[in-house]
Amino acid sequence: MPVHTAPTPARKTEAPPRIIIRGAEPVLDGGRYAAKRTVGETLTVSAEVFADGHDVIRAAVRWRAPGKRAWREAPMRHIDAHIDGDTWEGDITVDALGRWSWTIEAWVDALASWRHEIARKLDGGQEDLTSELAEGALLLEAAAERAKPADARILTKSAAEVTDPARTTEQRVAAALAGPVVAAAERAPDRTRSATLEPAVALDADPERARFGSWYELFPRSWGGLRGTAQVVPQLAELGFDVLYLPPVHPIGRKNRKGPNNALTAGPEDPGSPWAIGAAEGGHEALHPELGTLDDFAALVDTCDSHGVDLALDLAFQCSADHPWLTEHPEWFHHRPDGTLKYAENPPKRYQDIYNLHFGCEDWKALWQALLDVTLTWVDRGVRVFRVDNPHTKPLAFWEWMIAEVRGQHPEVIFLAEAFTRQAMMRALGKAGFNQSYTYFTWKNERTELEEYLTELSTEMADYYRPNFFANTPDILHAYLQHGGRPAFEARLVLAATLSPTYGIYSGFEDCENVPVRPGSEEYLDSEKYETKARTLDGPLLPMAAALNRARRAHPALQQLPGLEFMDTANGQLIAYVRRAGRDTVLVVVNVDPHHPQEGLVNVPASSGLPPAFTVRDVLDGGEYHWRLGGNYVRLTPGERQAHVLEVVS
Amino acid sequence: MPVHTAPTPARKTEAPPRIIIRGAEPVLDGGRYAAKRTVGETLTVSAEVFADGHDVIRAAVRWRAPGKRAWREAPMRHIDAHIDGDTWEGDITVDALGRWSWTIEAWVDALASWRHEIARKLDGGQEDLTSELAEGALLLEAAAERAKPADARILTKSAAEVTDPARTTEQRVAAALAGPVVAAAERAPDRTRSATLEPAVALDADPERARFGSWYELFPRSWGGLRGTAQVVPQLAELGFDVLYLPPVHPIGRKNRKGPNNALTAGPEDPGSPWAIGAAEGGHEALHPELGTLDDFAALVDTCDSHGVDLALDLAFQCSADHPWLTEHPEWFHHRPDGTLKYAENPPKRYQDIYNLHFGCEDWKALWQALLDVTLTWVDRGVRVFRVDNPHTKPLAFWEWMIAEVRGQHPEVIFLAEAFTRQAMMRALGKAGFNQSYTYFTWKNERTELEEYLTELSTEMADYYRPNFFANTPDILHAYLQHGGRPAFEARLVLAATLSPTYGIYSGFEDCENVPVRPGSEEYLDSEKYETKARTLDGPLLPMAAALNRARRAHPALQQLPGLEFMDTANGQLIAYVRRAGRDTVLVVVNVDPHHPQEGLVNVPASSGLPPAFTVRDVLDGGEYHWRLGGNYVRLTPGERQAHVLEVVS
Repeated sequence: MPVHTAPTPARKTEAPPRIIIRGAEPVLDGGRYAAKRTVGETLTVSAEVFADGHDVIRAAVRWRAPGKRAWREAPMRHIDAHIDGDTWEGDITVDALGRWSWTIEAWVDALASWRHEIARKLDGGQEDLTSELAEGALLLEAAAERAKPADARILTKSAAEVTDPARTTEQRVAAALAGPVVAAAERAPDRTRSATLEPAVALDADPERARFGSWYELFPRSWGGLRGTAQVVPQLAELGFDVLYLPPVHPIGRKNRKGPNNALTAGPEDPGSPWAIGAAEGGHEALHPELGTLDDFAALVDTCDSHGVDLALDLAFQCSADHPWLTEHPEWFHHRPDGTLKYAENPPKRYQDIYNLHFGCEDWKALWQALLDVTLTWVDRGVRVFRVDNPHTKPLAFWEWMIAEVRGQHPEVIFLAEAFTRQAMMRALGKAGFNQSYTYFTWKNERTELEEYLTELSTEMADYYRPNFFANTPDILHAYLQHGGRPAFEARLVLAATLSPTYGIYSGFEDCENVPVRPGSEEYLDSEKYETKARTLDGPLLPMAAALNRARRAHPALQQLPGLEFMDTANGQLIAYVRRAGRDTVLVVVNVDPHHPQEGLVNVPASSGLPPAFTVRDVLDGGEYHWRLGGNYVRLTPGERQAHVLEVVS
Repeated sequence: MPVHTAPTPARKTEAPPRIIIRGAEPVLDGGRYAAKRTVGETLTVSAEVFADGHDVIRAAVRWRAPGKRAWREAPMRHIDAHIDGDTWEGDITVDALGRWSWTIEAWVDALASWRHEIARKLDGGQEDLTSELAEGALLLEAAAERAKPADARILTKSAAEVTDPARTTEQRVAAALAGPVVAAAERAPDRTRSATLEPAVALDADPERARFGSWYELFPRSWGGLRGTAQVVPQLAELGFDVLYLPPVHPIGRKNRKGPNNALTAGPEDPGSPWAIGAAEGGHEALHPELGTLDDFAALVDTCDSHGVDLALDLAFQCSADHPWLTEHPEWFHHRPDGTLKYAENPPKRYQDIYNLHFGCEDWKALWQALLDVTLTWVDRGVRVFRVDNPHTKPLAFWEWMIAEVRGQHPEVIFLAEAFTRQAMMRALGKAGFNQSYTYFTWKNERTELEEYLTELSTEMADYYRPNFFANTPDILHAYLQHGGRPAFEARLVLAATLSPTYGIYSGFEDCENVPVRPGSEEYLDSEKYETKARTLDGPLLPMAAALNRARRAHPALQQLPGLEFMDTANGQLIAYVRRAGRDTVLVVVNVDPHHPQEGLVNVPASSGLPPAFTVRDVLDGGEYHWRLGGNYVRLTPGERQAHVLEVVS
């Protein structure tokens, strides 16, 4: 629906509103999608508001909580910027989960226009103001009729004084311009001819976790199943991780099961890929028997809850050859003319252990409902966070529908989109309802490309796309990590944890695991996707992760995406940035070269809001430094120190 | 209405379309307003078009002439740009006046997807393609059913070959990939599951004059009335002017008539301001008796027509104290409580000879209709161009309604907005329907501010805002002209005529008239607004204007706003630019310093499309020069030569 002031008159007998409300922000795709905030956050909305002529205009932003009928309201500010000075801004704060709506109302303030005009006439030396004062008295009397009794008395008295022939013109004008009279009038505006932005604009209020969180990913089969995983939760919590993400926990198909390193055939003991979902034991709603029982799952959820950790499950809507749906609902799958099923492939790559669902099949409604039911089943079992596998290979309309259905009942649930594809689809998934998204971060390892990408994410995309910066995944071991050794892991950990309010690592990262299956591949050698490992939580990078997680919790500046400013360093290998939120400031410098020492001058700009000289403390080792606006010498030597993460002490 | 792909299924039994069409351009304010082109121009539309998965997508732009039901169609091009590579473009050409509409349709090409997939499998060495080939044969047979007989035979034969067990796999694949088979399939696409951009987008096709024209403004009372004005038309046509614009030609009020230099009282012989419209002789539909009769007016229209000149009238919707409407329709005006009428004022400025209409009065419908009738009356009398006085002091909804009403009946009529106010209203008037607009040009006299402003006009605003660069007006004699002498006039004339496809001068400009009413004022001394002059068309700048007008007619590059690129000159006082349209190129260099010689190196960029070395001819004096890509030395000396306007000879 169009976002503009309708020219249709409010009442048939009245002319259309004179006020134009245009270019409201944030409005996504003409109002088709909702912008995102988290509960407690403020949204500043803006619009051009103007009318013909020179009258004084007032504007208010109005907003409404999910399911409520009453509108809240706050005055908007006129942002003066010379010839472009028709921009108004107002602030909304959302304090409940779910879909809010907001609009803008604007009106001509005839009494303020009159005050403005008569003051200028008096200044201009016009002597006879009788007609003008009579007009003012009428406006004051009209205001008195709208006002509450105390204000009405003030306004009526003023109207009498304004027309009192015993007073001088100056006195009569003064009677209308007196502070209490103006204040009383402002409390009783005439909004009968106001214009309203229509229709109202949607705004989704998500839980804080949608914006801010530190993720840890592990395969539970490598940690002793669900029970063993529960045992590691307290340590993860102590390390400052907020979300524990598990790849699919369902039965794994046996037919065409993949062996180690994606081998086409599996040995009898090979566990297969957790993404080949479904076996005789059940499908997407079942647990893999070797991981544990539903009671074990409930216990894991409880343990997570009691340690303030969210459990995130994988939603991978695809089936192994043994999934019950293949026999129960063959109509939900792609068939060839000869009746054979089409397995997943992206030629020449073939995924013989996986069959895609046919989202556009004739029975699509039942299929879509079944997938919603799967999701709601896990919500009922206590899951509040879903990492969605390959959403870009399923119809966008499906996600928009399913996420709206789940969040309509459970607005606390959040969905992370694991899409690695072109920008248009990445952005579209964010708009369609995903609360977080994977990004191109793993492939941005140089200073300039990080600066470009983060600027895009923190400005134009920020209203609908929340990045989750995973430093590695079971599928992505970037060449930078393969060849950079521990300094590369340190650089990436600091970048992930300080560039994005949400970041994550997949286990093995803290051990600096960096051997690819073959040169040129981003796949791990002996990938955990096809094998069970014996994992323990004791890698050498954990202290650094813990220090970063502590700093992230202590500093609001690290909990939001906007408020990011890159700093010049006079060295292309040194990236530096200021993060700000209110008065909280964190400065970060990272040597992105894992092989050589790099030195430079970090130029702290006056726009950082910092004083001319100040003391900073490095959250990574407690070291203190005296810094100042302008250039600050920094040298970062791989093996000794890869980064500074500096909080301002004084 | 929202411009996006609706997720609602086309038929109830089908899943929603998988194709997403998003971010279509040019779409103004979410589809609320129409972009503008002129008849014969091409509009390139674009959008992001994409779907889940890896299927081959096709897209077409479809467009429809005003009042027609049939859609025309052209294929869209996929613009590949790496990760942002989901942009498609297509071209529309409009060949009739009025409001067109366009949309985009996109669909998955299953057969092309299959061809792509099977080719990759063959390349990848997959040996058993039996299932795949059977699938392809089905798709070919389905295409045959959609195709015309000749194509159907080709497709059916191919389907048979694809499944022929006597052939090798390579031969069978080749049978599907053969050129004639592909071509036949492309002619019979399956668009039953296509997605369409909804609703269709509006596009206004205006007459060429809305985009391109040279205007001359004169007060007919200074030229012997309508008859005298008609006598000067042949000379104006010979000088290359396309539009003759007359300030209001109606009876002028006597009460509160202004005297020379805006004096509060007029002498008995003072003619008054033509903008104080209305007297005993009539109002907006009447002619001032001293200018001539309706027959004289008809004769003037005929003279203009026969010389290819458009006559432009002024629409100033305001009334003198003697306008018949004040007595016939007092309800159309603002009254004070004591019954007095409010004259126009912008304190401390007072326009005692003018009363504003109350567009929001109770009887607004009758008032609006009366103003429409005034306009249509002059259309009936042969006027096709209206210069609208101060549209920003009347409601935007009024203009939107009125212009749509006029152009619904007479799409050949164009309206020029004379608004000098803040950007938001200037832009809004363009969107609301004005075909051309006055600009800030007279106040942009320095190189950098001209470059900034022209960039804005020729890019982001170009779809809805057509500038008309008047170098002066009866109200605006800029200080630059007051102090710069003839060189300043030359500079401004060249800039106006070569920076904007539509430009104009108000008579006196060609005589370098430059005396203000007082220091610091932009008003003329002894302004023609309040006095009758004895004008003749013989000013010293006319030869330059004629040369510029000839060049403007000869060069498509000077007839459109886009295709503008500024060039470096290594001198802040030398502005230089390339104008291009197709293969036509014009280079312009202007010394904006009217007092001193300026020299520099005009750096012709490779992006100009010009060869490494070329010959140019100056349209102002015929001088020829050898230029090249890179730096070209230029020296411009006030009094000798203020500018180069260079056409490329070879």
